[in-house]
Amino acid sequence: MSDPREVRRQIRDGKWRRPTAGLAPGFVQTNLVILPRDLAFDFLLFSQRNPKPCPVIEVTDVGSPEPTASAPGADLRTDVPRYCVYRDGRLTQEVSDLRWVWRDDLVSFLLGCSFTFEAALLQAGVPVRHIEEKKNVPMFITSIACRPAGLFRGPLVVTLRPIPAALVARAVQITGRYPGVHGSPVHIGDPAAIGIRDLGRPDFGEAVTIRPGEVPVFWACGVTPQAVAMQARPPLMLTHAPGHMFVTDLRNEELAAS
Amino acid sequence: MSDPREVRRQIRDGKWRRPTAGLAPGFVQTNLVILPRDLAFDFLLFSQRNPKPCPVIEVTDVGSPEPTASAPGADLRTDVPRYCVYRDGRLTQEVSDLRWVWRDDLVSFLLGCSFTFEAALLQAGVPVRHIEEKKNVPMFITSIACRPAGLFRGPLVVTLRPIPAALVARAVQITGRYPGVHGSPVHIGDPAAIGIRDLGRPDFGEAVTIRPGEVPVFWACGVTPQAVAMQARPPLMLTHAPGHMFVTDLRNEELAAS
Repeated sequence: MSDPREVRRQIRDGKWRRPTAGLAPGFVQTNLVILPRDLAFDFLLFSQRNPKPCPVIEVTDVGSPEPTASAPGADLRTDVPRYCVYRDGRLTQEVSDLRWVWRDDLVSFLLGCSFTFEAALLQAGVPVRHIEEKKNVPMFITSIACRPAGLFRGPLVVTLRPIPAALVARAVQITGRYPGVHGSPVHIGDPAAIGIRDLGRPDFGEAVTIRPGEVPVFWACGVTPQAVAMQARPPLMLTHAPGHMFVTDLRNEELAAS
Repeated sequence: MSDPREVRRQIRDGKWRRPTAGLAPGFVQTNLVILPRDLAFDFLLFSQRNPKPCPVIEVTDVGSPEPTASAPGADLRTDVPRYCVYRDGRLTQEVSDLRWVWRDDLVSFLLGCSFTFEAALLQAGVPVRHIEEKKNVPMFITSIACRPAGLFRGPLVVTLRPIPAALVARAVQITGRYPGVHGSPVHIGDPAAIGIRDLGRPDFGEAVTIRPGEVPVFWACGVTPQAVAMQARPPLMLTHAPGHMFVTDLRNEELAAS
């Protein structure tokens, strides 16, 4: 499926329940975090203070499930193939429809995901190891604290991509063009300096091969805001299920810095 | 005065009550908007939806007058030489101290101002006409609507800088490096296309000379959020007085895109 509107229709009609990687190539896919308005100010402030792990693509109006800027006509309650429902910070259900749990005080956050910049890396000839090895990207909890905001506080989570030394500068430049999807790396080399002991044992995802002559390069990860939000134990929080993203009408190139 | 801490001390001690242009060269100066928490979410959302006119440098914690990231130890109630107090959208007082009006529910927004990118333009050999002519920058209300958020809605206000045709691309590239202070232009050439009838009659500021071979280039203006906030008639809004900015410890180069 190459058209984002068609993708969302199939999902809404229950015909697509699987992960969204590879759907509507060239279009931006996002993470989804939905919170009650009471907590939305602090979460938006957390995102403003930590733009690399929390790149905000869109925030809906209070109570509205329609992301009018990035996917007009879409419904965030039905257009994601799988959702997680958290109560008091605990996962209580996985569902494919949020209409039954929707409330007039909910605010939806669409946050950039790394699919966009990985496409740009591949197009520029920079290898992306976990894609080559068909694995989930390796993620690590670092010793870097995010700047807190209200209830929301916690460590920065990063993704690892091993990059050949000669291509590290290119990888920085390419991803730096996309501040809306984590931007340039937060750390290059020396894992110990950010509290990572063993690159072979990620906290989430799967380990990947690091070849001789490759440098470990770390980017801020969209798991950060979800982890931070869960720790704040909000009475209700709704998210996409891992890998089951929201597909927008925005083209990747529209996210390039302007 | 070249040190921002010294500038703020002089201001706090009542020894500097004039505009801040030229103080602490190389350091970021900001606009200041202070609103009750009730309205802060919508104002932050408005800024997120309209990053070019509303580039957020920092948002303080609720009730705290200290901008811990951009000027630790500073006090936003005393460290600006002149403030405006608005009630129900009307200017009621101009004062040099906000401690008497401070409340525990106030949230302070520091928004980027164009001093930073004008320094970068001048360093790159791009002329800035209103500085040459020692005038206030010409500003125009456009026909472009900002994306609304809650109570906050209104037209985009732009600044005009006439740029020699051969330097327009350079001006785009240089200011594009600074998304934190309005970034690249919103419009180049053809004033009528954005609802501007007469470049000689700005809505705010003063007209400047446009020479043969120069192109009118328009950047989003920090007056936009103040105008929009005033139209929403908040019960209480506090701001810097025009030209009397808050001087941070951030160096201009720290605002360059990363």
